[in-house]
Amino acid sequence: MEVNAVLDLMWIVVCGILVFFMQAGFTLVEVGFTRAKNTGNIIMKNLMDLAIGSLGFWLIGYTIMYGEDVGSFIGVPEFFYSVRDDMHNLFFQTVFCATAATIVSGAIAERTKFSTYLIFSLIITTVIYPISGHWVWQGDGWLTSLGFIDFAGSTVVHSVGGWAALVAATLVGPRIGKYVDGKSTAIPGHNMLYGALGVFILWLGWFGFNPGSELAISGDSANNVAGIVITTNLAAAAGAATSLFLTWMKYGRADISMTLNGALAGLVGITAGCAAVSPGGAAIIGVISGIVVVFSIEFIDQVLKIDDPVGAISVHGVVGAVGTLCVGLFATDGGLFYGGGFGQLGVQAIGVVAIGAWAMITAFIVLFILKKTLGLRVTEKEELEGLDMHEHGIDSYPEFGSNLDK
Amino acid sequence: MEVNAVLDLMWIVVCGILVFFMQAGFTLVEVGFTRAKNTGNIIMKNLMDLAIGSLGFWLIGYTIMYGEDVGSFIGVPEFFYSVRDDMHNLFFQTVFCATAATIVSGAIAERTKFSTYLIFSLIITTVIYPISGHWVWQGDGWLTSLGFIDFAGSTVVHSVGGWAALVAATLVGPRIGKYVDGKSTAIPGHNMLYGALGVFILWLGWFGFNPGSELAISGDSANNVAGIVITTNLAAAAGAATSLFLTWMKYGRADISMTLNGALAGLVGITAGCAAVSPGGAAIIGVISGIVVVFSIEFIDQVLKIDDPVGAISVHGVVGAVGTLCVGLFATDGGLFYGGGFGQLGVQAIGVVAIGAWAMITAFIVLFILKKTLGLRVTEKEELEGLDMHEHGIDSYPEFGSNLDK
Amino acid sequence: MEVNAVLDLMWIVVCGILVFFMQAGFTLVEVGFTRAKNTGNIIMKNLMDLAIGSLGFWLIGYTIMYGEDVGSFIGVPEFFYSVRDDMHNLFFQTVFCATAATIVSGAIAERTKFSTYLIFSLIITTVIYPISGHWVWQGDGWLTSLGFIDFAGSTVVHSVGGWAALVAATLVGPRIGKYVDGKSTAIPGHNMLYGALGVFILWLGWFGFNPGSELAISGDSANNVAGIVITTNLAAAAGAATSLFLTWMKYGRADISMTLNGALAGLVGITAGCAAVSPGGAAIIGVISGIVVVFSIEFIDQVLKIDDPVGAISVHGVVGAVGTLCVGLFATDGGLFYGGGFGQLGVQAIGVVAIGAWAMITAFIVLFILKKTLGLRVTEKEELEGLDMHEHGIDSYPEFGSNLDK
Repeated sequence: MEVNAVLDLMWIVVCGILVFFMQAGFTLVEVGFTRAKNTGNIIMKNLMDLAIGSLGFWLIGYTIMYGEDVGSFIGVPEFFYSVRDDMHNLFFQTVFCATAATIVSGAIAERTKFSTYLIFSLIITTVIYPISGHWVWQGDGWLTSLGFIDFAGSTVVHSVGGWAALVAATLVGPRIGKYVDGKSTAIPGHNMLYGALGVFILWLGWFGFNPGSELAISGDSANNVAGIVITTNLAAAAGAATSLFLTWMKYGRADISMTLNGALAGLVGITAGCAAVSPGGAAIIGVISGIVVVFSIEFIDQVLKIDDPVGAISVHGVVGAVGTLCVGLFATDGGLFYGGGFGQLGVQAIGVVAIGAWAMITAFIVLFILKKTLGLRVTEKEELEGLDMHEHGIDSYPEFGSNLDK
Repeated sequence: MEVNAVLDLMWIVVCGILVFFMQAGFTLVEVGFTRAKNTGNIIMKNLMDLAIGSLGFWLIGYTIMYGEDVGSFIGVPEFFYSVRDDMHNLFFQTVFCATAATIVSGAIAERTKFSTYLIFSLIITTVIYPISGHWVWQGDGWLTSLGFIDFAGSTVVHSVGGWAALVAATLVGPRIGKYVDGKSTAIPGHNMLYGALGVFILWLGWFGFNPGSELAISGDSANNVAGIVITTNLAAAAGAATSLFLTWMKYGRADISMTLNGALAGLVGITAGCAAVSPGGAAIIGVISGIVVVFSIEFIDQVLKIDDPVGAISVHGVVGAVGTLCVGLFATDGGLFYGGGFGQLGVQAIGVVAIGAWAMITAFIVLFILKKTLGLRVTEKEELEGLDMHEHGIDSYPEFGSNLDK
Repeated sequence: MEVNAVLDLMWIVVCGILVFFMQAGFTLVEVGFTRAKNTGNIIMKNLMDLAIGSLGFWLIGYTIMYGEDVGSFIGVPEFFYSVRDDMHNLFFQTVFCATAATIVSGAIAERTKFSTYLIFSLIITTVIYPISGHWVWQGDGWLTSLGFIDFAGSTVVHSVGGWAALVAATLVGPRIGKYVDGKSTAIPGHNMLYGALGVFILWLGWFGFNPGSELAISGDSANNVAGIVITTNLAAAAGAATSLFLTWMKYGRADISMTLNGALAGLVGITAGCAAVSPGGAAIIGVISGIVVVFSIEFIDQVLKIDDPVGAISVHGVVGAVGTLCVGLFATDGGLFYGGGFGQLGVQAIGVVAIGAWAMITAFIVLFILKKTLGLRVTEKEELEGLDMHEHGIDSYPEFGSNLDK
C-alpha cells in the first residue's frame, strides 16, 4: 500500500479506537446520572449493545448501509463482511453504529427489561441505523442526491439514537415516583464523578468521531482534520459555558448536570457541520446547543412528561437536529459565516425530518411488538428493589448499604 | 529516517501508549472485584509492578529477551539498554512485560504481603518473562525454530502471567472465609462499575496490544493491522455474548462478572491468532473462549478450591492456552478457516506446555523461597482488617464507613 | 500537503488529544484527594477551566504567546485566531494552556468561591501563561535568546501553575480544621481509587505532553520522539519507586498518596529535559524528583503551613523548578550524563526565577483585587456543609449518606 493510503488507514483506525472508548463514556454518564441499585444493569446494557452491535453490524448491518445501492434506499446485504482491504472502514463504522444504539439506553434506564433491550439493540444496529445511514453516507442514497450535509452524524448517528430514545421512553413510561400528582420530581443520580468522567471520555472520543469522519488525513485532508479538531473543541467549550451561565441565571446556582449536558450538546451540535464551519461558527453553534439543551430537557421533563434520566433525547435528538440545521446557517467558504442560503437550510430540514420519522416509526413498530410480546418493562417490585438484584442477582456496591433499604 | 520507517515507529509508539493504559484497566478490575478494605493496596501493587517493570526491563530484561541469542534459550544481557534508534521497541516491549507481571496481582489479592509482591514483580519482569519470551519472539529461540505461532502473546504474555498466578494463588492459599467446610463462598467485589470501566479500558488497550504486535503499519502491514483490529473486536464481542448467554441459561440470571470476564477471555483467546484467522474464525475463537472461561472459573473455584478473586488464572492462563491452540485449528489463507493441520496444532501444544511449565516452575521456586524467608501472606488480623490499614496506614474511602466495621 | 508535513500534523493532533485527556486526570486526582462534599465543585472547576481556557486561548491567548514578537516580551494579539493551516498548533497549545490553569485548582480546593475561580482561570489562560510562555517558546523571547531550555514545560507550564497555586493557596488561607493550635492535621481524601486512576490518566497524557512537544515526528524527529517516550516513562517509574521507598523508611508504611505524587513528580521533573537527557539521566531526575516532592510537601504543609490539599505546589511548582535546573546538570550528547556546565545551569536558574516571579506577582495582583472585590472564599457555613450543596445545590453521592451529616 502506498504511503498516503497507509496514513489514511492509520488515521481511521486511531479515530475508531477513540470512538470505541465512547462506550465507556456513555456507561459512566448513565450510571452516574441514575441510582446505585441499577448500576450493574446499565453496565450490562452498554457492554452488550457494543457486543451485539459489533457482531450484528459485521453480520449484515455494514452491507445494508454501504453495500451496492438499491433504489437510493438500501444496500444489498451480504453476510459476514470480510473484504480484506476494507477492514478499517468496517471497524470505524461499527463503533459509530454502536454509538447510535447505546444512546437509547440512557433514556429508558432503571425500568426496562434487559432481554427486550438486547433485542432492540440488535434491530437498531442491523436494520434501523444502517438503512437511514445509507441514505446519507453510502454515496448513492436519496439524501446524498439532494445535497444533505451531515459530516459526522448529528442526524445520522445522534438523532437516530435520540428519536428512537424518545419513542422508547414514551412507550416504557416514566419510572415509579417520577411524576407524582402530575408534577415532575427530580431523581438525583448517585455519582456525579462518574457522570463527569463519562463526559470527559466522550469529549475525548469525539476527537475520533468528528476528525475521523474525514476518512483521510493525507494531502489536503490534513488541514481539514486539524480544523475539525478545533471546531469540535470550541463547540464543546462554548456549549458547557453557555449551559453553565444560563442555568446559573435561571436557577441561581451553577448546575452541574446541565453543564455536563451542555458540553455534550456542543459536541452533538457541531458534529454535522464540523468540517463546514469556521471556528467562530463552531463557537456560535456551541452557544445555540447549550441554550437549546437546557430548554429541551425542561420541556421534555415538565411539559411532555417523558422521563429521560440522562437527557439523551434532548442532547442527541433535539440538539442533533438543531446542529444539522445549523449547517445551513453557518457553513462557510472561509469567512466567519455565510450560510448555504435558504436552499441548503431547506435540504437540511428535509433530512432531519425524514430520518427522524424513519427512526421514530421503525422504533415504534419494533417496540410495540416487543411490548405486546416479551414486555418492555420490569415488574414494580423489580423496579423498586433495583434491576441489579432481579436481572443480575447482584448488588453492585455491597459494602455501601443494601440496595433493598433504599 | 525515511517515511515508512517513521510510520512504523509512530504506530509502535501509539500502540505502546494504549497498552500502557491497560495498567489502569487491570487496577480497576482488581479493585472492583475485591473488597473496599484492600483498595489502596491493590492500587499500589498495580502502580508499582508498572514502575518496577519499567525499570527492571530497561535494566536487564529487554536484552535477556531480545539480546543476541545464546543456545536458542536466552539473550546476552546488557545493562541499562539505551540504543538510540530502538527506543520505540524498548517502550512497546516494556509495557507488554508489565502486563505479564500485573496479571499475577489479581489472583493473590487481599492477602499477600506487599513487600513480597514487589520482589516477585522484579523477578518476573527481569527473568521469568524475558527468557520464555526469548524462545518465541527474539527470532532465534527454540520455539520460533519449531514454527510456534503466538502473534501477540496469548501464551508469551497472558499464560505466563496466568500460570505464575496459579502457582502464587496456590502457595498463598485462599482468603479467610473463602472456603468454609470445604464449600466455596462467594466474596462479592465492592464496586461493579470499577470492574466494568476496567474492562472497557482493557478492551481499548487491546487495540494497541494486538495490532501493535504487527510492529509495522507501512506497506502490506496496513491491511494486516486493520484486519487485526477487526478480529480483536469480534472475538471480544463474541466472548462477552457467549458468557452472557451461557450463564443466563446456567444460573437463570445475566451474570455481570462472568460477562465482563467473557469479554476479556475473547481478547486473550484471539491474541495468539489475531493475524492468522478470518473474522469468522475470530468470532468462533471468541465463542470458545467465552465458554471455556466460565467452566474454568467454576472448576478452579469449586473443584480445585484455588481462590482467585478476579478469575485471572482462567482468563489469562487457561484461555491463553486455548487461544494458542486455536491458531492450529483456525489459521487461514483467506477462507473462513482451514487450520494448520495436526502438525501446527502439535507445535502449538508444545509451546503451550513448555512455557506453562517454565512459568510454573520458576514461579514456584521464587515464591517458595519467599515463603520460607519474608513470608507470602499478611497476618490474620491484617487480612481481616484490611491491607490498606496495615500495609499503608489508610482507609481508601474514609467517609463511607470505616473498614474496621466490616 | 506533503507526506512529512502530514505525519507531523497527525502526531501533534494525536498528542494534543492525549494532553486533553489529562484534564480528566487532574479532576480525578483532586476529587479523590479531597472530601466527598466538594466533589461536584471540583468537577465544575476542572471542566470550566478547560472550557474557558479553550475559548480564551483562541480568543487572544494564542497570539499573545505565539504572535509577532514585541520587545522579546509579548506577541501582538489578534482576536479569534483562525489561520487555517495552523489549527493543529492552536489545538496542541490550547490543551497545554488548560493544563497550567487547572494546576491551581487543586491547591485551593474545598474553600474557594466558584465565580472567583472562573475569573482567575480566564486571566491565567489569556494573560499570565501566554506572556511567560512567549519568552521561552515563541522563538524571539528573551529567555530563548539567553539559551534557556524547557523542552516541554517543566517551568513554562507546570511551574507557572504551581507558583500561581502557591500564591492562591496563601491568599485563600487553609481549610477550616486544617491547622489546629498551630499543628497540621491530615484531612484524608475520600476516594483513593479516583486519585490513582487520575495518576494513570495523567501518566498516559504525558506521553502526548512530552513527545508531542517535539512538534514533529518525520525524519530525525522519529527517534527523538521515541527517546522522549522512554525518558518520560523511566522518570515516572523512578519517581514513584523513590517516593515509595523513602516514605516507607520515614513513616514505616508504604504511603499511597506520596507514591502517587512521586510518579507525578517524576513526570513533571523530566518535562524540561526529556529530549536532552539519556535514559540514565531520566531515571536520576526521577529519583531526585521523588525525593524533593516528599520533603517539599512536608515543608509546605508543616513549616510554611500553607494548605495544599493535593500537593500541587510541590509537584508542579517545586519539582518543575528542580527539573528545569536538572537540564543544566544532566543534558547529554549521548553519554550517560555530561551536563551543560555551570553556564547552562545559570541560564536555567535565571529562567526559573524570572518565570516564577512573573507567575507569583501577576497571580498576586489578580487575586488581591479579587479578594477585595468578589472575595476569594466561601463562608464558613458553606465550607463546613460543602461547596456542592451551596454553590451547586447538589449532593454528589446522595445515596451514600448526606453530606450535611459529615
